[in-house]
Amino acid sequence: MQGLDRIRVVLVEPSHPGNIGGAARALKVMGLSELAVVNPRRFPDPQAEWRAAGAQDVLEAVTVHDSLDDAIADCHWVVGTSTRQRRIPWPLKSAEEIAEEAIARQSRTPDSRMAILFGREANGLTNTELQKCHCHLQIPADPDYPSLNLAMAVQVVCYELFKQALLNQPLSDQPGGQPDIWDRPPATAQQVEGLMTHLESVLITSGFLDPANPGQSLTRLRRLINRVQPDETEVQMLRGVLNHLLQGNSGPN
Amino acid sequence: MQGLDRIRVVLVEPSHPGNIGGAARALKVMGLSELAVVNPRRFPDPQAEWRAAGAQDVLEAVTVHDSLDDAIADCHWVVGTSTRQRRIPWPLKSAEEIAEEAIARQSRTPDSRMAILFGREANGLTNTELQKCHCHLQIPADPDYPSLNLAMAVQVVCYELFKQALLNQPLSDQPGGQPDIWDRPPATAQQVEGLMTHLESVLITSGFLDPANPGQSLTRLRRLINRVQPDETEVQMLRGVLNHLLQGNSGPN
Repeated sequence: MQGLDRIRVVLVEPSHPGNIGGAARALKVMGLSELAVVNPRRFPDPQAEWRAAGAQDVLEAVTVHDSLDDAIADCHWVVGTSTRQRRIPWPLKSAEEIAEEAIARQSRTPDSRMAILFGREANGLTNTELQKCHCHLQIPADPDYPSLNLAMAVQVVCYELFKQALLNQPLSDQPGGQPDIWDRPPATAQQVEGLMTHLESVLITSGFLDPANPGQSLTRLRRLINRVQPDETEVQMLRGVLNHLLQGNSGPN
Repeated sequence: MQGLDRIRVVLVEPSHPGNIGGAARALKVMGLSELAVVNPRRFPDPQAEWRAAGAQDVLEAVTVHDSLDDAIADCHWVVGTSTRQRRIPWPLKSAEEIAEEAIARQSRTPDSRMAILFGREANGLTNTELQKCHCHLQIPADPDYPSLNLAMAVQVVCYELFKQALLNQPLSDQPGGQPDIWDRPPATAQQVEGLMTHLESVLITSGFLDPANPGQSLTRLRRLINRVQPDETEVQMLRGVLNHLLQGNSGPN
C-alpha cells in the first residue's frame, strides 16, 4: 500500500530469533515488507521461521547488518522506540503521531525512506543509538509494567502505520477500511412504521395489549426496534412472524 | 485504570500455551488483568510462563472454563474478533471503534462487564460462537495476509483499549499521555533574535559573510533556527559557541 513500502523496521541486536520471525509476520499483516536486523544473536534460526508463519517472504528478505549506521544509511527520517525518559529530552511522539507523520512524509516526498528502530529485548536502544534518531517513539502503556515484548511493539507500530495509510487511501481502495458490509438496505421509516402498526394490532388481537389502558409497552417496543435499526429483510421477516402469530391466535383459517 | 478492570479477554481453545503467556503479558502492559481460557490444549505450561515474562500475576489469575457460555456468563457486552466476512453480516467495528464504545460503556455503567473473544490460532471463532456476540471486531490488516498471530491480536486490541482509557482520564492522571517532557523553557523571540544578530556579526567578522553582498545564507540560517525551535539553554549554548569561535578568529585576547 502507498506509503508503507519505504518504511524499514530495524531490530537492533535482538536476542531471540523468535522475535525476528514474529516481527516479520507483524510487518506482513500490516502491509510492510522491509525488515533489517543489526547483529542478531541467532539468525537465521528455525524459531524465526516458525514464528514468521506465512511471512517467509519477508523473513527471507531480511537484511543483516553489522552496524546500525549501515542499516539506516539511506534513510531520511529515523525514529527510535524508547520507554525511558532521557536525561536530555528528545522530540517524543506516540505511535499514532509517528504513524501520522510517517504517512504524511511519504505522500509529500514519495522517494524518502524512513527507519523505525527497536532495541534489545532486555534494555532497548542505547543513548548513542537514540541520539541518531530525529524523533523518539513511545507506545502508551501501563506505567507499572510498560514492558512490551519486542515483536508486540513492532506489531503495534506497524498497525498504527497501516491504519494511517488506510486513511490516506482513496475510499474505493480501502480494503480493510469501513466497507459497507451489510447485505440488505436499512428499512425506511415508513417500513418501520408499518411494522409497528402491525405489531400493535397483533398485540391487541392477542389480548396482550388493552387499547383502553395501553401502558408503556408499545413505547418500549418502539424504542427497541429503533435501537436495532432493522433492515428491509428483517422488517419483512418480523411481519411474517406476526402474521403467523396472529393466525395462531385466531385459530387456523 | 478506570474502565479497564472489568474487561475480560477470552481465548477460545488456544493450541499454543505460548500464546496464553503472550496474551497475559499483552494485557498487563496495557493495564488489563482478566484473562479467561476455554478448553486450552496445554495449560498450565512452562511456555506460557516464559512468554508471560513479568505478567505472572495475570497468568496465575487466568480462569479455565469448559465452555464459552461459562466464560462469559456474567458479561453484559460480548465482542468477538473475526477476520472473515459472515454469510449473515453482524454488526462489525474496528478495534479502535470497539475501544471507544467499551470505555464509553464502562464510564456510563461502571458495574457492567464486557468480554472480548479471540478464536483458535488456525480457524478463529465458529459461527455459533460469533453469534453469541453483540458485535464483531475486525483488526484492519493487509487483505493479502490478514493473519495476525493470536497474542499479537490481543496486544493490538488491548493497546486500543488503553489508549482510549487514557483519553478518558483527567489530564493530571495521564501517565503515558502527552506530558510536557521538555526540561527547559523554549527560547523567546527576543532570545532567538539575539542569537541571530550575534551569528550575523560572527559570520561577518570571520569573513564568511560579505555585508555588501550577503546572499541567501542568513535567511537559510534563520529558517533552520526557527524550524528547530531552540530552548533557552540551547540559545545560550549556541551563543557561547559563537563567542569562542569569534575569539578564535580574532586571535587570543
